[in-house]
Amino acid sequence: MTAFRHNQTCHFGLDEAPLAPGEVAIVGAGPGDPGLLTLRALSLLQQADCLVFDRLVSAEILAMARPEARRYYVGKASRCHALTQEETNALLVRLAGEGQRVLRLKGGDPYIFGRGGEEAEYLIEHGIGFRVVPGITSASGCSSYAGFPLTHRDYAQSVTFVTGHCKGDRDLALDWAALAVPHHTTVFYMGLANAELIRRELQAHGMPAETPVALVERGTTPEQRHVLATLGDLVEVIEREAFRPPTLIVVGEVVSLAETLAPAMTRLARTPEDAIDALAQGMGRVAL
Amino acid sequence: MTAFRHNQTCHFGLDEAPLAPGEVAIVGAGPGDPGLLTLRALSLLQQADCLVFDRLVSAEILAMARPEARRYYVGKASRCHALTQEETNALLVRLAGEGQRVLRLKGGDPYIFGRGGEEAEYLIEHGIGFRVVPGITSASGCSSYAGFPLTHRDYAQSVTFVTGHCKGDRDLALDWAALAVPHHTTVFYMGLANAELIRRELQAHGMPAETPVALVERGTTPEQRHVLATLGDLVEVIEREAFRPPTLIVVGEVVSLAETLAPAMTRLARTPEDAIDALAQGMGRVAL
Repeated sequence: MTAFRHNQTCHFGLDEAPLAPGEVAIVGAGPGDPGLLTLRALSLLQQADCLVFDRLVSAEILAMARPEARRYYVGKASRCHALTQEETNALLVRLAGEGQRVLRLKGGDPYIFGRGGEEAEYLIEHGIGFRVVPGITSASGCSSYAGFPLTHRDYAQSVTFVTGHCKGDRDLALDWAALAVPHHTTVFYMGLANAELIRRELQAHGMPAETPVALVERGTTPEQRHVLATLGDLVEVIEREAFRPPTLIVVGEVVSLAETLAPAMTRLARTPEDAIDALAQGMGRVAL
Repeated sequence: MTAFRHNQTCHFGLDEAPLAPGEVAIVGAGPGDPGLLTLRALSLLQQADCLVFDRLVSAEILAMARPEARRYYVGKASRCHALTQEETNALLVRLAGEGQRVLRLKGGDPYIFGRGGEEAEYLIEHGIGFRVVPGITSASGCSSYAGFPLTHRDYAQSVTFVTGHCKGDRDLALDWAALAVPHHTTVFYMGLANAELIRRELQAHGMPAETPVALVERGTTPEQRHVLATLGDLVEVIEREAFRPPTLIVVGEVVSLAETLAPAMTRLARTPEDAIDALAQGMGRVAL
């Protein structure tokens, strides 16, 4: 069986003003699966002269751009930046100034921990035109693919997204009491390095040790894996299972639903090999 | 000039197991703009035998399905349901039981105030196979299109999504102290009817009256409008400007960035007339 036995080709018409020479489109690429790109994102990806992209934008997504588009990797693992934010800003301005049609492609959503606002402000200061296209944020992608909702009338009437790491080596200063409330879901982006602090502070603010926690590593990609733990054994599970970034930490009763929902979902597993085959054949996405 | 002067036709390949007879795909349609559909959503939309959709799914999106697909409107304005949740659940089971390929199309994301979890649990109880596809949640779409981020290193390190209405006529019971914290953004979905309560409780829990608030009505659609207000004059502005649902209420310093960012963004305005023209010509989206 080839990896492409289910391949569907889709067409759509979209009437959006074309990306102009000297303009920057700040676009959310979603959490990894190319199937979670929006139609606007794909259309802009196919127009761009150059791509300025982060570590979390998958090779499969980059393969959907024009082959001749120039590619600039600007990195961004926590505490290890390929370019500083200032260098990235300057690169965008330089490329736009050359009259390129620039796609600034970000994992997730540009306006949720994506620094899209900062880049837009910088572009304005330098007289560069821009548009912003939202993307599926990692919390949405991970929850769907791991099999639990973020809200549910019986378990959580609200959800908070919070960044679990901070600039440089400062301590993570969060309003822990606000996160430890019941009937609520908290999603920690980039929280792995601070997992012990998260556990300690949430428990210190009254959250029970048996509160369910989900760890979702590389959510929506062929390498996704997720484990259900509890707040009390969070750190132990991270060490035992050797979780690595990017991993989302989701705290709240809703994650228990994965025990029921995940095994019942239609099996759509892709393997890393499928993704490699797909790339080799110039496809966007495979064997799901 | 025709409304289609910028029309782009895109193609993509996607290898996802086809929607099976008797299976339900619970799919997020995003906040309204068809350009915010995901590639997976479009692919499934083009396979489905029948669509079961909410009030917030736009006519432009429905027009992208197969013409012969049967369409079931199940409503859901606050306090005014075309079908109860139980009736919707039963409809999904009946259609799947007939061997239809069923698309359950929801505004926004099925797992953020979408009751996707409840529907999935019901399908499992009845032995129906399903998959879940995340969508752009309304908060993401509205923030991008109105011109402000939801987080920003200078203004907000976290964002909470909360539902501003509740089952029946019960009072809205939220943890107000957790929402009134500084350096934070709160997005109230469906909060218009409780705006006075929201204002009063947030102020009572220490949030200053001058805290910026954005109101975004019908975000990402051709009818989108947004106004910047403050917590103190929130109710007065809603009345004076005659805001109607669906309107998102976003509270926090980040919304002030719209004053800088919104006027600088590439003008992509669509008009309601554009959307009607597009529908008449069978297009997905126009004149953006």
